[in-house]
Amino acid sequence: MDNRPIGVLDSGMGGLTAVRELLRVLPHEDIVYFGDTGRVPYGTRSAEIVTHYALQDINFLLGRQVKMVIAACGTVTTTLPDSLVRRFQFPYTGVLSPTVEAALAASRSRKIGVIATATTIRTGAYERELKKRDPEAEVISAACPLFVPLVENGFVERDNKVTRLVAEQYLAPLKEAGVDTLILGCTHYPVIAPLIGDVMGGKVALIDSGRAAADHARRLLAEENLLTDRKTAGKCSYFVSDAPEDFARNASIFLGEGFCGEVARIEITNYPDTI
Amino acid sequence: MDNRPIGVLDSGMGGLTAVRELLRVLPHEDIVYFGDTGRVPYGTRSAEIVTHYALQDINFLLGRQVKMVIAACGTVTTTLPDSLVRRFQFPYTGVLSPTVEAALAASRSRKIGVIATATTIRTGAYERELKKRDPEAEVISAACPLFVPLVENGFVERDNKVTRLVAEQYLAPLKEAGVDTLILGCTHYPVIAPLIGDVMGGKVALIDSGRAAADHARRLLAEENLLTDRKTAGKCSYFVSDAPEDFARNASIFLGEGFCGEVARIEITNYPDTI
Repeated sequence: MDNRPIGVLDSGMGGLTAVRELLRVLPHEDIVYFGDTGRVPYGTRSAEIVTHYALQDINFLLGRQVKMVIAACGTVTTTLPDSLVRRFQFPYTGVLSPTVEAALAASRSRKIGVIATATTIRTGAYERELKKRDPEAEVISAACPLFVPLVENGFVERDNKVTRLVAEQYLAPLKEAGVDTLILGCTHYPVIAPLIGDVMGGKVALIDSGRAAADHARRLLAEENLLTDRKTAGKCSYFVSDAPEDFARNASIFLGEGFCGEVARIEITNYPDTI
Repeated sequence: MDNRPIGVLDSGMGGLTAVRELLRVLPHEDIVYFGDTGRVPYGTRSAEIVTHYALQDINFLLGRQVKMVIAACGTVTTTLPDSLVRRFQFPYTGVLSPTVEAALAASRSRKIGVIATATTIRTGAYERELKKRDPEAEVISAACPLFVPLVENGFVERDNKVTRLVAEQYLAPLKEAGVDTLILGCTHYPVIAPLIGDVMGGKVALIDSGRAAADHARRLLAEENLLTDRKTAGKCSYFVSDAPEDFARNASIFLGEGFCGEVARIEITNYPDTI
């Protein structure tokens, strides 16, 4: 039993979709979220810089006494070297491995689609990981660069005409290929999952990386006997590296109307980048 | 007479719309462009940081022996303090003042619309400058945050359904208000000017800040006898602070198919931030 909070880091606000899933599967846990809104996006930066940023983010969370760290950010997940992650003295998970596992468990036809930002698709990380675990899998990838700005600007309703039109264009090759499972490989995408589901058709399983990471975290904490024994609702604290007002204003897009919790700004560059 | 190049700076690629206009009005001049693609966007950063960045950008251009500096970036234009600009020992122009002048010259009804990024609209800079020069002017502003990602992702054709739908939504209040002049207060917007014109209707004058700045630069250089005497086409050199490949790939969106010229990466943080 361990009543310390779970730490979640992301390059910005998208990781809040993982928080939403944590609130659902582990409602009694406290959560400390760090969104690096002052240095977003990570996806366009070099591996060296991303590693430097991620270690500062992790050190901030460890300073808040978290019992585990979830990197809700796809770029951090795929950039931190294995040799470094193996040295972590605390439970840690990214989004890649749990998401790929969930996709392979859901797919019958072994035709799996991946949608993500242009940067993530270019790394080929999802495709590589899927094929490593199942060499028979056929992977069809598509970059959907407009989904992030559409979500951040609130074009998120299931019947939003603009987002629907963009989604039909981006998803056409995946529909044509006949995938039966679609990985939402960017933290923002679960916000428009209902619309994506409508475009893909009801038979396609949508795999939400935030949900997969939250499920994985629950299993990990249970196995190591680190779940809280509290029976009351957990508390969430949010920290950002840019204006907290912007974060609070937009958080409801990701967390729903139920967003509450303190948002504070911290100086992330003051944290060490060694573990 | 002065055969040195004209320097243009921007936080990223949008300033290329000003380059396009310079090529049109001053075809014999050499141009050195710096796009701070590694630190884009400027709009969300503090005034202190933007000033620090802009001075580094200017020092880079001065190091390339430019005869004048055009800040094609709206954020730089509205952030650099007047007291600092007055100390510049070289001809300098931002985009705000020439654009406002052009808008007031074009408007008959004195009802002027301004569209720009959310950050620029929030500063109120265009509205303030318009009212300072014409207290009778009625200014209607609208943030169009999706235009930049739409342009950067190539959704720029005049009949693009997505961009048209977004434009109709954003521009509705300006149409209702009956503006006769519309300031395109973001460097990206001229790329979709034909589409914006279709939505606004043919009687509304569109004011392109890049064009206004280029016209102003031509007058300034002519007045100070600094125009080149060459009769051959000028050369363009492009410098960026992130991957040059991305820049070269997307430059044609802003410059048209005619894009040519060397693109090189520089380490902008090595340049001093004092003038």
